[in-house]
Amino acid sequence: MFKKYSLPILGVATAMLAAGIEPAMAEEAKTTEVQYIFNTINFLMCGFLVMFMAAGFTMLESGLVRAKNTATICLKNIALYAVAGILYYLIGYNLMYSGVDGGFMGTFSIWAPDDAAVAKGDFGGNYATASDWFFQMVFVATAASVVSGALAERIKLWSFLAFIVFLTGIVYPIQGSWQWGGGWLSEMGFADFAGSTLVHSVGGWAALTGAIILGARRGKYGADGRVNPLPGANLPMATLGTFILWLGWFGFNGGSQLAMGSAADLIAIAQIFINTNIAAAGGVVAAMVATQLVYKKVDLSMTLNGAIAGLVSITAGPDTPSMGEAMLIGAVGGTLVVFAVPLLDKFKIDDVVGAISAHLVAGIWGTMAVPLTNADASFATQAIGVLSIGAFVVTASTIFWLILKYTVGIRVSAEDEDLGLDMAELGMEAYPEFGRGSQSM
Amino acid sequence: MFKKYSLPILGVATAMLAAGIEPAMAEEAKTTEVQYIFNTINFLMCGFLVMFMAAGFTMLESGLVRAKNTATICLKNIALYAVAGILYYLIGYNLMYSGVDGGFMGTFSIWAPDDAAVAKGDFGGNYATASDWFFQMVFVATAASVVSGALAERIKLWSFLAFIVFLTGIVYPIQGSWQWGGGWLSEMGFADFAGSTLVHSVGGWAALTGAIILGARRGKYGADGRVNPLPGANLPMATLGTFILWLGWFGFNGGSQLAMGSAADLIAIAQIFINTNIAAAGGVVAAMVATQLVYKKVDLSMTLNGAIAGLVSITAGPDTPSMGEAMLIGAVGGTLVVFAVPLLDKFKIDDVVGAISAHLVAGIWGTMAVPLTNADASFATQAIGVLSIGAFVVTASTIFWLILKYTVGIRVSAEDEDLGLDMAELGMEAYPEFGRGSQSM
Amino acid sequence: MFKKYSLPILGVATAMLAAGIEPAMAEEAKTTEVQYIFNTINFLMCGFLVMFMAAGFTMLESGLVRAKNTATICLKNIALYAVAGILYYLIGYNLMYSGVDGGFMGTFSIWAPDDAAVAKGDFGGNYATASDWFFQMVFVATAASVVSGALAERIKLWSFLAFIVFLTGIVYPIQGSWQWGGGWLSEMGFADFAGSTLVHSVGGWAALTGAIILGARRGKYGADGRVNPLPGANLPMATLGTFILWLGWFGFNGGSQLAMGSAADLIAIAQIFINTNIAAAGGVVAAMVATQLVYKKVDLSMTLNGAIAGLVSITAGPDTPSMGEAMLIGAVGGTLVVFAVPLLDKFKIDDVVGAISAHLVAGIWGTMAVPLTNADASFATQAIGVLSIGAFVVTASTIFWLILKYTVGIRVSAEDEDLGLDMAELGMEAYPEFGRGSQSM
Repeated sequence: MFKKYSLPILGVATAMLAAGIEPAMAEEAKTTEVQYIFNTINFLMCGFLVMFMAAGFTMLESGLVRAKNTATICLKNIALYAVAGILYYLIGYNLMYSGVDGGFMGTFSIWAPDDAAVAKGDFGGNYATASDWFFQMVFVATAASVVSGALAERIKLWSFLAFIVFLTGIVYPIQGSWQWGGGWLSEMGFADFAGSTLVHSVGGWAALTGAIILGARRGKYGADGRVNPLPGANLPMATLGTFILWLGWFGFNGGSQLAMGSAADLIAIAQIFINTNIAAAGGVVAAMVATQLVYKKVDLSMTLNGAIAGLVSITAGPDTPSMGEAMLIGAVGGTLVVFAVPLLDKFKIDDVVGAISAHLVAGIWGTMAVPLTNADASFATQAIGVLSIGAFVVTASTIFWLILKYTVGIRVSAEDEDLGLDMAELGMEAYPEFGRGSQSM
Repeated sequence: MFKKYSLPILGVATAMLAAGIEPAMAEEAKTTEVQYIFNTINFLMCGFLVMFMAAGFTMLESGLVRAKNTATICLKNIALYAVAGILYYLIGYNLMYSGVDGGFMGTFSIWAPDDAAVAKGDFGGNYATASDWFFQMVFVATAASVVSGALAERIKLWSFLAFIVFLTGIVYPIQGSWQWGGGWLSEMGFADFAGSTLVHSVGGWAALTGAIILGARRGKYGADGRVNPLPGANLPMATLGTFILWLGWFGFNGGSQLAMGSAADLIAIAQIFINTNIAAAGGVVAAMVATQLVYKKVDLSMTLNGAIAGLVSITAGPDTPSMGEAMLIGAVGGTLVVFAVPLLDKFKIDDVVGAISAHLVAGIWGTMAVPLTNADASFATQAIGVLSIGAFVVTASTIFWLILKYTVGIRVSAEDEDLGLDMAELGMEAYPEFGRGSQSM
Repeated sequence: MFKKYSLPILGVATAMLAAGIEPAMAEEAKTTEVQYIFNTINFLMCGFLVMFMAAGFTMLESGLVRAKNTATICLKNIALYAVAGILYYLIGYNLMYSGVDGGFMGTFSIWAPDDAAVAKGDFGGNYATASDWFFQMVFVATAASVVSGALAERIKLWSFLAFIVFLTGIVYPIQGSWQWGGGWLSEMGFADFAGSTLVHSVGGWAALTGAIILGARRGKYGADGRVNPLPGANLPMATLGTFILWLGWFGFNGGSQLAMGSAADLIAIAQIFINTNIAAAGGVVAAMVATQLVYKKVDLSMTLNGAIAGLVSITAGPDTPSMGEAMLIGAVGGTLVVFAVPLLDKFKIDDVVGAISAHLVAGIWGTMAVPLTNADASFATQAIGVLSIGAFVVTASTIFWLILKYTVGIRVSAEDEDLGLDMAELGMEAYPEFGRGSQSM
């Protein structure tokens, strides 16, 4: 129903003109059925790509945690995707999109599709409403996915899921309404094409808040200030996850054009695809070079996070940069990650998979970089968007994390943590037959 | 050529009307080239999603078997996908779709594409015939994939593949002709939109029959009635497989609209996407809650099967329920799995991956649930469909399994089973460097 | 801008005729906006499928190397995909497509999109130029992916990447210009629809040259002539990789139709889909049967390579064979692999994953098989194409490999090789907790 940007309408009317049909017959441009079909396909196709990012996050995180916590992180990820979808149906979508009208939130009501106009031959809704719901839903799931990795290996399963209910049902939709729902931020002229701030930073802020309140994993930070690496158990899994995220990001950014019914849309989407790709490539190369220079060795996990940071960085504005600019935006993101990860460790903020660095730090960078290539954006407004959303998410998350902490608790016992969440919380092992190697804890 | 349902035709003719072209010029609605293109894209795009489900089943099963049988289950899965495609070309498609005409089967003949009408400007075939073949082929492969997991860890490779030849060349197409080929069941008014019964139950019945005739794995059921869990070796693999299946199911159910050339089609497909998604989400949450209540711990494997059961449940009628109804249909499916798995164990029916519970039990439930939201379906006819197809598949499978058993044999020797099929049948190991842990058998 | 074949133009003009609009109004066929949209979607959708093949190669290779070299092969794969994209932007695309005009190469210049004509209502460019760049870029990345597997477990990381810069920036684009850029080979009538020679053989020749210059892994060939298998550490990963490649190949071959704006295009693409699928199926079955006959056991790795060889074989001409012919073309490819792998071992050419057999041998076979089903192709011209491209890639690669060898070096030290590249070059382990099994070296 609501949309982020006005849709360019050329479509069949223009095609008829091009084919020699009299202007009088084609009349003024309005959405045709063919455009309606293309627009809906855009949401469905890009939506299933973004849906698959849930698998990408799961693989990334299951590769970067230790074996004894792997089944639990898998469970959390499939559960959070399920919960996000249910909550966005019950509360989230209408809270984000229904009747925001320049304000701070929509209505509390269950969502239902409404395609009645089409039966009367009116395609002005531009797409099947359910396709839009689907596309927006996979975005809220993405924000939730950012949280699970950062808090892995010590958070209680059901407390984590309670937070996901709060995040996907309340927090994400309210801040989302400010911009994509047509609220106060969009009226100010904030620019966040596909969600560097609205999706990735939101997940990052929630993860940061949670990581601080939850505390670091046992053994991560030595009494002498030493940082213990606690390496992930399955790096090819993490690599697969990164590739899946990269694939899904074509849908994430490309689909955010929100329309596919004109040549102008396709030119924009194609540009978004190549910018998204080369920003990730820039992030990969920058992270490799940075780790080689700083550590004298290339680091695979850091390179994977470099790809993700490149993708997050370009997400706020994948449509306006040239390819060279997109590559540089991604490269800066990939470089930031290499320095943000040890910086967080310095503050003893324990982010298991580097999600805060890749999604929050790169998300802020990407949002602030929009005015560099987009004359319609201003640094001041971008900063207002970043800060207001950050303040809201941090405040709301802190309150909820603390409520959880002092009621049901958020952290497993030290014994359970040492044993591993898989045995402690699920009573199973992710890899029951693979012996424990020397670096295991 | 044949199709499951009549196609709504609006398309460009309607678009022209909407664009102000005189009714006299647009004439009566018939399939246009643009609709033909959209319809064919639907089959190709949804078809490649369903094709990828073969990878999903492979990952699910390779994660849920023990390490010593992993290479073999990988081999069986890629082989069955290849065999299904070849048999559906040589026999299956025409046996299912050619000249059924209210009867019990089509013709025994090799399939070939026929798009001659298009050259004459007639798009009434609605889509490129090869795209339909592709879409139908990946469905038969799905049915075959259900079987491999249930019978894993003790069946002989070549005997298994012989059964797959029989299933995909003969059994699946004959029962498929009853409904989707325009046979007697479709004339009765049976409703099975995307194949809860025609695909998933068929695989489930064949697996059930095979599991009974083959017998349980050594050590699965103790003399004292105790059930030994024999846990799978790689749960993140199984999780990945579930996500891939979830992704593929958008193609499975969405593509079964069989047309994408009108706004009405897209409204239906979008509804199918969101119902499919929330049914799976309902299955996940229900399985988590059920295992928490029953076993006091959440179980990852059961949750994964809950997702699959939710997907199977909605497959018979993803187009008619509201989202809330779809969620409940999936949730019932996810709950059924939690009780069906131990029930099968009580009867010493050894289903390695839970395929019978997720595909057969949930498939029956989903088929019987259609009349709850679809006024055109009746419980009696749904029961006739479930029972007739069940009786046919069980009878045919039993005969073929017994022929195999008393000729070439279907079960490896006890020594080979203890050694593992990978070393015994392939002479290799799936994970040659990963030590065997304490729970290995 | 440039394209491999002329595009059939029917589209909306024909649709209007079919809908009863006066011929005078529809005028002569030219590209309409709707066709432009379809054509661009073809490149974007098929392009993201081919992009995902980078993940397929990564999984295949990470499954077929030993555990101690797994993180490194993951890193090489994500790095090569990033580098290929950057180089194709900086040099490759214009060197391949800009101003070749019957000659031997294009221009050295940075690529930028140009869609200016569309603003004037001229859709004769047929698609958004960035979508074409994206589609062509993922092809060069595919060629590069072939190299990494063959040279795994002993090549230095940065030397490998230097070669990838050379391959994707210079070698691939120059030979590509000969055919797809409209150069001398295309003028001779060479036929290579989607790149059996231009993509897969190119990667294969570069890999072969590298494997010879680099030498075999330590311990691969015993002094007594015995071949030590050195089995891969994670076969389900390799299986997943193969399925991902199979999926991606629908985009690889189907998208190479280069247009999706007419019923004729869709009929061709659908035919390509089913031929691609059944060629792979033929490769699987042939490899299984051949290994069963020769070795008395079916081999999973060989079967996976059989699928890939079947896919490579059909890639030169997926549009002209019947399904039966496509199956046979794939089956020959799958059989060739079973004999090519031990043949290379006889010459002590150590190809870690079988890439040379699957991509080069099957690529030559597929290219030479085109005239069997395509009357427009001749064996002589096909041989000229295979030999000229082979000679060019081998010569260029040899020079570059030797420069690297005698400057920075291409091979890690014997100690590092024994230790494994992961610890030696990255200072990390891919699977730090999984104990080393008995077959490990």
